[in-house]
Amino acid sequence: MKNYDVIIIGAGPSGIITGVTGKKQNPEKSFLMIMEEKKGLVPCGIPYIFHDLDDVSKNAMGPKPFIAAGGEVFVDTVGKVDLEEKTLTTVSGEEFSFSKLVFATGSIPTIPKFIKGFDLEGVEYVKKSYNYIEQLKQKTDKAKNIVVIGAGFIGVEIAEQLAKYNDKTVSLVEMEKHCLYRAFSEDFATKADIEVRESGVKLFTETKVEEIIGKNGKVTGVKLSNSETLNAEIIITTVGYKPNSDLARDAGLTINSQGMIRVDNYQRTEAEDVYAVGDCSQTVGFITGRTDNIMLASTATAEARVLGYNLFSINLLRNFTGTLSVFSTEINHKAFASAGAIEQVAKKANIGYVIGEFADVDRHPGTIADTYPLEVKLVVNPENGEIIGGEIYGGKSVGEMINIISLAIQKYVTVYEFVSFQIGTHPLLTTAPTKYVLIKAAEMAIAKMKKK
Amino acid sequence: MKNYDVIIIGAGPSGIITGVTGKKQNPEKSFLMIMEEKKGLVPCGIPYIFHDLDDVSKNAMGPKPFIAAGGEVFVDTVGKVDLEEKTLTTVSGEEFSFSKLVFATGSIPTIPKFIKGFDLEGVEYVKKSYNYIEQLKQKTDKAKNIVVIGAGFIGVEIAEQLAKYNDKTVSLVEMEKHCLYRAFSEDFATKADIEVRESGVKLFTETKVEEIIGKNGKVTGVKLSNSETLNAEIIITTVGYKPNSDLARDAGLTINSQGMIRVDNYQRTEAEDVYAVGDCSQTVGFITGRTDNIMLASTATAEARVLGYNLFSINLLRNFTGTLSVFSTEINHKAFASAGAIEQVAKKANIGYVIGEFADVDRHPGTIADTYPLEVKLVVNPENGEIIGGEIYGGKSVGEMINIISLAIQKYVTVYEFVSFQIGTHPLLTTAPTKYVLIKAAEMAIAKMKKK
Repeated sequence: MKNYDVIIIGAGPSGIITGVTGKKQNPEKSFLMIMEEKKGLVPCGIPYIFHDLDDVSKNAMGPKPFIAAGGEVFVDTVGKVDLEEKTLTTVSGEEFSFSKLVFATGSIPTIPKFIKGFDLEGVEYVKKSYNYIEQLKQKTDKAKNIVVIGAGFIGVEIAEQLAKYNDKTVSLVEMEKHCLYRAFSEDFATKADIEVRESGVKLFTETKVEEIIGKNGKVTGVKLSNSETLNAEIIITTVGYKPNSDLARDAGLTINSQGMIRVDNYQRTEAEDVYAVGDCSQTVGFITGRTDNIMLASTATAEARVLGYNLFSINLLRNFTGTLSVFSTEINHKAFASAGAIEQVAKKANIGYVIGEFADVDRHPGTIADTYPLEVKLVVNPENGEIIGGEIYGGKSVGEMINIISLAIQKYVTVYEFVSFQIGTHPLLTTAPTKYVLIKAAEMAIAKMKKK
Repeated sequence: MKNYDVIIIGAGPSGIITGVTGKKQNPEKSFLMIMEEKKGLVPCGIPYIFHDLDDVSKNAMGPKPFIAAGGEVFVDTVGKVDLEEKTLTTVSGEEFSFSKLVFATGSIPTIPKFIKGFDLEGVEYVKKSYNYIEQLKQKTDKAKNIVVIGAGFIGVEIAEQLAKYNDKTVSLVEMEKHCLYRAFSEDFATKADIEVRESGVKLFTETKVEEIIGKNGKVTGVKLSNSETLNAEIIITTVGYKPNSDLARDAGLTINSQGMIRVDNYQRTEAEDVYAVGDCSQTVGFITGRTDNIMLASTATAEARVLGYNLFSINLLRNFTGTLSVFSTEINHKAFASAGAIEQVAKKANIGYVIGEFADVDRHPGTIADTYPLEVKLVVNPENGEIIGGEIYGGKSVGEMINIISLAIQKYVTVYEFVSFQIGTHPLLTTAPTKYVLIKAAEMAIAKMKKK
C-alpha cells in the first residue's frame, strides 16, 4: 500500500489547482491525484464543444501542470475512504494511505426524476466527463430536433451553440419567467431572452415539461404545460447540478442541507487533515453570510489556491468572508455578467438597496466603428453606499468589467469612492471618461440615496 | 455686467464635468461656461479623425449635458481675470462677474523651438481645437509624405491612423529607445515598436530630428541624427503638452514648477473661491506623493467630479491621495495599457519592487476562435505585497482589465488578496479560471517575495 503525504480525489479545476499550488509550496511532500478518467474537460468550455470548438479534444484539460510540479496521478474511481485508518480503496481494488486527504469530487447533473419519461433512451445530461461528452457530441451531430430542458447558463449556452446548425431545430424550455433568472434581474434577463431567440433557439418560458414521451423505450419528444408537443430525438436536461458528496458522506463527514461537505474558511472539514474544495464543498454567501450553493470554476479555483497555500500551515489568510457568485456568458455575440447580490437576491435576503443604472456604448465617440451597447446596474447599500452587486450587458469588454465590480464588492468600495475612481479610457477600448458607465451608475445611486 | 454664481473657463472634459456635476448638485445657482470655440472635440478621439472616423464632426463634444442641466455657455476667449474684483473680461470686450471661478483651461501642444525650422509652413500640432483639426485633416488628406515627431500616445496613434492610407508614407521619429517609453517598461514598449512597424509606419527610435528643412518658407522634409533625410509635405509635432496656465498666472495665482496651477485635494487654488481642474491644475503622484505632470481626460474628469460635488461645501471626501496615471491605447489591433508605478517610474523614484508576470491567451480553452495573447506584469511592494503598478498587453479586454489593476492600486489591494480574488470567467470572454492572468501574476510576485 503506497503512502502519500497528500491525496486529492478529483481532477477538475479545484483538484488541479489544489495540487499545483500545494505541491509548489511543499516540494518535499508527495502528492497523488486520483482521477476518474484519463482525460478531463474545461467545465465551462463544454457547451462550445457542440459547435464552435466542434471537437471534444479541443476542450481537454489535464493534470499536466500538476505533474510538471512533481505530482503523481492515478486513473481510477475511489470506492471507499477510511478516515480512521487514513486509507482509501479504489473500485479496481488499489489501496493507498495518506497523511492528508482532499475531496475535490465536484458536482453531477441533477436527474429530473419528477418528469415522467426521464429514463427513456435519448434523455441526456451535461456530465463533466470526457468520454460521455464525446459520445453526446456524436449524437447531437446526427439529431435534427433537440429539446433542452432548463435555461440556466449551461442550457442557454448549449441551445445557442446547437442552433448554429441550420439543419437542427432547437427548443429550450424553462419553468421560470426568463432565461438566466437566477443571475439577472428582470430587465437584463429579458434581454437574455431576446438574444436566445435571435440566435435561432425556440424559447419557451413559464413552461413546464409535463412528460418526456417515447416509443419502444426511445425518446420521441416532450409534452409541454401549454399543451404543445415538441418532437425530439434527443433531450438534454440541464436542470441543475448537485454536489458529488456521497463518498464523503459514507466516510462519515458532515454534509450540509445543500448536500455540500461542511468546511471552514480554509476548506477544513470537521475531520483532522481532511479537506474539501470546489463544487462538493460548502460555500457561504459573501453578502448574506448564509450557506448557499454556488458551483463555479472561478469560485472553486479561489478556494483551491487558499487551500494549496495553507495545506500544512495557515500561511496566507483568506481575505474574503464568503463566496461571491460572479457569472458571465455570451449569447448571440452579446455578453451578460453579474456579481454579488442582484435585486431579487437582495430582496429575498431582506437586504436594503438602491439601484444606480447607466447605459452608453462601449467605445467613444459613439460614431466609432464596431460599438456595442453597454448597460450597467449597481446594487448599493443605501446606508453607507457600499456596492453589493452589479449586472452588465454589452460587448466582450463586459467579461472583465464585471471583475471591476467583483473587486469593488470584495473590497467594500462605496459609490462615493467610485466618483473619484481613476480609470483608463480609450476611444477604441472603453466608454468616454466623461461618462464611464460604472462611475455614472454610482452617481445615479448617490442621487437616489440623497432622496431617501 | 452679468453676474454668475460660478463661471468655468474652458469646455473640455474637466470643464463640462465640473459644470454638469456642480449644476446638478446646486440647481439654484447660476453657472456660465466660457468656451473658445462653438464646437469642441473629444480629446482622446482626435487621432481617429485622421482615418477611422474620417471626419472631424464625428468626434465632436459639446456642452449639451451642461446646458441640459441648466447651465449657460458663452463662446469667447477670456483675456483678463481680476480676482480682487471677481470679474473677467473676454477678448471681444464682454465683462462678467462671479462668486466662484473655475480654471479648466486645459493644455496646449509644446512647440519644439529647439528644432531649427520649427516655424516653417507645414509644421503642424495636435491642438485640441475643432477648427484647427478640421483644417489639419484636409492637409493630411492631400499629403503623400508625413513625418510625425514624438512617439508618445498621440504621435503613435496619429501615425498608425495615417499609415492606413495606402498612398501615404508615414514616418515616426522618437529620441528615446522605444515608443511609449514613458508608460511602458522595456519589454512592453518593444512590443509597441513591433506593432507600430506592423501597422506600416516607418519608425525611427533613438533618433533625433536635427532640423526641419524647407524651401520658400515651406516644409520639404526633416534631417535626422542618423544623417538620413525624410521628405515630407507635413510635419506633425507631438513632443508633449504644457498646461495652459498663463491666464491664471497673470491673474496672480501660484503656478508650480511643472507650469500647473497649484491646488489642494479639492481643486482649490490659493485664492478664495477660485479653483483649477484638469490639465491646467497640479497633480500629485499617488505612489510618490510628488508633483507630476499627468494630463489625461480620465484624471481630469475624476478631479472635476470631486470639484462639482464640493464647489459650495465639502460633501464628498476625495478618496485618493494622489493622481494615478492610467494609460491605454490600441496599435494595429493590439491593446496596451498601464497604471501606476511601472518599473522605470519605481526605479527613478527609488521605490522598491518585485515583478510578477504571466502570459496566456484571452479566451479559454486556447483552441477557441479569435483569441489574442494576453500578458500582464504587476509591480509589487516587496514588504507588504501591495500592488503599485501594472501593465497589460493583448486584445480589447485589456482596456477594462487595466481598471481592475487601477482599482486594486487605489484600494491598496495586495497580491495575497488576489490569490483568493473571486472573479468571473467565461470561455468566450476571459482567460481560464485556473490561470486567470492577474491572479497568476500575483502568485509569481509572492514566490519572488519569499526568496527576498
